[in-house]
Amino acid sequence: MSKSETKKINSKERIRSISGFPEWLPEYRLVELEWIDSLRRVFESYGFTSIEPRSIEPVEVLLKQGDTDKEIYAIGRLLGDNDNEVEPSYALHYDMTVPMARYVAANMNQLNFPFKRYQIQKAWRGERPQDGRFREFLQCDIDVVDTRPIPPHFDAEIPIIMHEAIESIGAGPLTTKINNRKILEGFYLGLGISDTTNILRIIDKLDKIGTDGVTTMLSNELELSATTIDKILNLATIKGSGEIVINRIKGLDVKSDLLHEGLDELKFVMQQLEKHKNGTFLVDMSIARGLAYYTGTVYESRFTDYPEFPTICGGGRYDNLVGDFVNKKLPGIGISIGLTRIFAKLMKEGKIKATQKTPTEILVVHTQNAPYDFIKNTADLLRSRGFNVEQYHEDRKLKAQLKYADEKMIPWIWFPPNKPNGPHEVKNSKTRDQNIANPNTWLPD
Amino acid sequence: MSKSETKKINSKERIRSISGFPEWLPEYRLVELEWIDSLRRVFESYGFTSIEPRSIEPVEVLLKQGDTDKEIYAIGRLLGDNDNEVEPSYALHYDMTVPMARYVAANMNQLNFPFKRYQIQKAWRGERPQDGRFREFLQCDIDVVDTRPIPPHFDAEIPIIMHEAIESIGAGPLTTKINNRKILEGFYLGLGISDTTNILRIIDKLDKIGTDGVTTMLSNELELSATTIDKILNLATIKGSGEIVINRIKGLDVKSDLLHEGLDELKFVMQQLEKHKNGTFLVDMSIARGLAYYTGTVYESRFTDYPEFPTICGGGRYDNLVGDFVNKKLPGIGISIGLTRIFAKLMKEGKIKATQKTPTEILVVHTQNAPYDFIKNTADLLRSRGFNVEQYHEDRKLKAQLKYADEKMIPWIWFPPNKPNGPHEVKNSKTRDQNIANPNTWLPD
Repeated sequence: MSKSETKKINSKERIRSISGFPEWLPEYRLVELEWIDSLRRVFESYGFTSIEPRSIEPVEVLLKQGDTDKEIYAIGRLLGDNDNEVEPSYALHYDMTVPMARYVAANMNQLNFPFKRYQIQKAWRGERPQDGRFREFLQCDIDVVDTRPIPPHFDAEIPIIMHEAIESIGAGPLTTKINNRKILEGFYLGLGISDTTNILRIIDKLDKIGTDGVTTMLSNELELSATTIDKILNLATIKGSGEIVINRIKGLDVKSDLLHEGLDELKFVMQQLEKHKNGTFLVDMSIARGLAYYTGTVYESRFTDYPEFPTICGGGRYDNLVGDFVNKKLPGIGISIGLTRIFAKLMKEGKIKATQKTPTEILVVHTQNAPYDFIKNTADLLRSRGFNVEQYHEDRKLKAQLKYADEKMIPWIWFPPNKPNGPHEVKNSKTRDQNIANPNTWLPD
Repeated sequence: MSKSETKKINSKERIRSISGFPEWLPEYRLVELEWIDSLRRVFESYGFTSIEPRSIEPVEVLLKQGDTDKEIYAIGRLLGDNDNEVEPSYALHYDMTVPMARYVAANMNQLNFPFKRYQIQKAWRGERPQDGRFREFLQCDIDVVDTRPIPPHFDAEIPIIMHEAIESIGAGPLTTKINNRKILEGFYLGLGISDTTNILRIIDKLDKIGTDGVTTMLSNELELSATTIDKILNLATIKGSGEIVINRIKGLDVKSDLLHEGLDELKFVMQQLEKHKNGTFLVDMSIARGLAYYTGTVYESRFTDYPEFPTICGGGRYDNLVGDFVNKKLPGIGISIGLTRIFAKLMKEGKIKATQKTPTEILVVHTQNAPYDFIKNTADLLRSRGFNVEQYHEDRKLKAQLKYADEKMIPWIWFPPNKPNGPHEVKNSKTRDQNIANPNTWLPD
């Protein structure tokens, strides 16, 4: 592409919003930042550390892993190749999982395992924008990758952390459905079917095409008998608490080592979760998760209050994703939170309250006869005591200064003395109380 | 571009680093995050609020403003246009200024002025990577935009904030050179030259081509007389404290209203800065700043210890950049910090100390006879008291658990009791002191 080929656009187009690329006003950005801070605090409180991989990956890496039908944004230098430099094909990452896997594989000799990381970063997908879908969005992931088998401890801890994180930002209640791919695959193996991948793919459509659709596909595509299909569908409809589900599955009288392993893992996970959070975690045998790479426990969360809204958190255990890069065993487990999706939905529902337009706590105004330096020193003093302080930027009529404070919703107005050695005063913007105050000792009430 | 055209790459290429796209190990990412937190704290303490514009802009917007020779990364959907949807030309932003200007213009009815914002965000430039230059980097800007003339207060406050920010991350000392375009342009006008833009462009090369080169260009291109060139070069070599510089310029006996205005502004700015920071702020008449949009005070900072290293902060006053979008007067002033450039340079110089590989403060280990739930409860209790706590993830030999803590540099190891009602103990990893401790009350010493 050359400079001259770029489209000419008019001035309205120059400032108009771009569909799928959200931007918030400052008062909402303040809330978004609080959310990011809270999430980070929760993740760090469990010993997860931040990484920030580059925004691009080789196109082949992005296409190989995960959903290859994701619409990927490729990048290329506008002015083209001017140094005979060969430009490889790079694209913006569409999730946090693939870059994390590549990062861990690339740095494995310098990382310590189990490696526990969180990532709160932008991702890009060239999807057609619609309710709950964005082309640029904040994604927020935690994952554990190990050089040894991942202990079941993490299968239970990861959703606990995720729920604590969602609660910390006031975005709950969530309903999280849990399953274990080993149960599904082990069950199919127990029925004598080895091509479990195709059954999983079809069962994953249960939500969309219903029992009849799935029956037809299982019968036509995989040529399964009516009895087998019946058992597969029986399994898929089981849901509830850990104990109930495990008993019902055992009652179906199908056996395999993998099924047994899956049931043991699920039992431990649900014991921990049900202790922690009664009712918000449910086992659901219809949850398979679309992505091919999951190999054990899988999670899927939705808003309890908006059950029709798409999944807002999802994840699970993947034994081969990371290791594939370096031909080693590096199993992992993790969960992903669609931060922008959650934020935009709650904003739309009027659940996000903007209470400030600035982080400023105190505005120091220019009063009659107080010199610039005195006002500046007052602001500096209050700032050195830990407050967020603006010195009003010019000597204007008080009315104009107070209007500024009012519009920006600044909670305190500070009045330096009008005469030498006079007292400072401070006004509470809400109650309109105004009192004498000492900038060395004043504290908000 | 279609899927089939993407280059096939081997497994080494899949994980190799991409030149100009830096990534840090977790121990350095922890420091980078501390830096970001500190910068944010300083900016917010002066009442600047965060905005996070989208990562892309229409190509025409990016090309129109600022350095049009920046190598811009255009984006395009890999799978192309499958819905007959017209894909406009978008590209990743190369700085924070243009997106801020567009954001302010687009939202001006919902913002309150003077609008004071900070932005800490990624930017992309398709430059040939070299020392101090990156293709993906963190940039960190503060700006003020107003609907009225910007008061000189901000010309002084902005570099004070910037120095405080750089000090807060321990990246100083910096040397900041200050100038005012009004002085340069006003001086040229006083000499009877109205085409000041071309002189500025040539004077900006003084650093690179020296006095002789500049003399030749001024003489050949602009056909200026030897006397005039002499005066222009005389001005360009003046540097030092505010008072010295102002007196020397007055001594050159050139007069114009614009020059007078510039000197007044410079006087106020330097009075504030020299009070604040003796010696680290210097006036330098050779500083013109390349960008066309500056119209008043300009700033340029380098590492005092590495004077050959490229500029790490720069900025100034621009009267027309924002307003251009909406055909209104929206003057602004701001400064930009090259965070990745600073971080990478100090890392290379060994000045960034990594002291932790995880935010974890306490590792709760599995001891003999302590059940999983008891260990979990201990970890939860310490976590609820505000500590970052990992419960070791499986019941392994103590040696393996301590090795993990050691490798991740976790400062405290917590030992739950070996027998019911026995005491907890905690060990300081550095001093190796181990003492009885109560998880309800223990505090690190």
